[in-house]
Amino acid sequence: MKGFSVIGTSSTGKTTTIENIIKELVKRNYTVGTIKEIHFEEFKIDADGTNTSRHKEAGSSLVTARGHYETDIMYQHKLSVNEILKFYDHDYVVMEGVRDTSAPKIVTAHDIKGIEDRIDETTFAISGQISNSMTEYKGIPVINSITHVDKLVDLIEEKVFKLLPDMKDECCQKCGHTCRELSSLILGKKAKRSECLLDNQEVSLKINGKEIKMVPFVQQILQNTVEAVAKELDGYFENGDIEICIRR
Amino acid sequence: MKGFSVIGTSSTGKTTTIENIIKELVKRNYTVGTIKEIHFEEFKIDADGTNTSRHKEAGSSLVTARGHYETDIMYQHKLSVNEILKFYDHDYVVMEGVRDTSAPKIVTAHDIKGIEDRIDETTFAISGQISNSMTEYKGIPVINSITHVDKLVDLIEEKVFKLLPDMKDECCQKCGHTCRELSSLILGKKAKRSECLLDNQEVSLKINGKEIKMVPFVQQILQNTVEAVAKELDGYFENGDIEICIRR
Repeated sequence: MKGFSVIGTSSTGKTTTIENIIKELVKRNYTVGTIKEIHFEEFKIDADGTNTSRHKEAGSSLVTARGHYETDIMYQHKLSVNEILKFYDHDYVVMEGVRDTSAPKIVTAHDIKGIEDRIDETTFAISGQISNSMTEYKGIPVINSITHVDKLVDLIEEKVFKLLPDMKDECCQKCGHTCRELSSLILGKKAKRSECLLDNQEVSLKINGKEIKMVPFVQQILQNTVEAVAKELDGYFENGDIEICIRR
Repeated sequence: MKGFSVIGTSSTGKTTTIENIIKELVKRNYTVGTIKEIHFEEFKIDADGTNTSRHKEAGSSLVTARGHYETDIMYQHKLSVNEILKFYDHDYVVMEGVRDTSAPKIVTAHDIKGIEDRIDETTFAISGQISNSMTEYKGIPVINSITHVDKLVDLIEEKVFKLLPDMKDECCQKCGHTCRELSSLILGKKAKRSECLLDNQEVSLKINGKEIKMVPFVQQILQNTVEAVAKELDGYFENGDIEICIRR
């Protein structure tokens, strides 16, 4: 699952940029999911006085509204991006306003001042009104999402990679970098996505708690075999971690 | 995780009953989550024109609104009750208006006609206005949730059991009954919750930490498949517990 975030101050065209990108990605036959960061302090999706809101007020800590054509699962706290991503299984996840991610970013702005406030080493494109006055800024392509969405999505296809695990800086760095550093190195073609060591597929097998060593070839056979059965089951999730326990 | 559903025609006090029950359950230190079935055809949680609504219109098939104090995950289709329950990890799940479940039910009604339309073998209590005129109907306790919520929640504590897996009728019945039949037998003290054979699963499978239910037949297929590969490996031994972890 690949992912990127579109950031920029208010009214710089984040949602318009994302709309255009989603439409183009869907046109290219990708599946797309989105996450919108809402900075408005008073935000509530559910209106006061609805039955679901009354459940919440009475003390229900997780409320689901199950309609004919939608199902809304409403958590009453802010989930981490990683927790949210567990619900996704799309070709691309597009985030709006999400900054606490190592994923590549598009910055939207009216002018250079607006860019300067937001660009960092994970920025791979700039969009918004500023694209009417320049095509590049400090080596970063500036692209209008209305008139040149094809060019913008070409760049997304070229640059955006499979989401990094976004481990906390203090608890991984197995590859020698934080996730954010690795992200910028990948964008700059100074590292490969495969350098993330957590990502190398790992198949482990224990009998009575003891690890059985398997060469990669055998790991692959075991994985294929398990997947062949598991994928037929309700609730199976492409790319989800699999755990099996057989008590004999 | 225990669960029950409160059903009844419109305006018979389902939400009020649930509010009172939730408050009392929370007072008794239980964690509570809720699921509200919405029969209103046009229901949409998200207002037209919001940024998240624009994501959806552009083609995003899963949209999350991440606010400061809540996170709303909006699926654009109706999930099954089992799919929804995977998000829950509460002492009690209270469902409003959900009828496609084998879980025990409270029926709310104004009068006998209202009860007759809804009661079935999974009904363990009756509430709503009718509780002003009787205390029992065909052996089922009729309890006012405003004046006697303690009595109603005592009954919930006594009667409501761990949710049955709600397998499709055609694909399990290993205990000799459909889930709905077993539910009514448990309520009538003619069977025990432990008679559900799926619960004593010896083969367990988790995807991303979430348990996938398997009928015994499928458990056996998975076990045979895994054993077929594992037994060729150095260190394997007959009858040892097997654990497999596949990180993808």
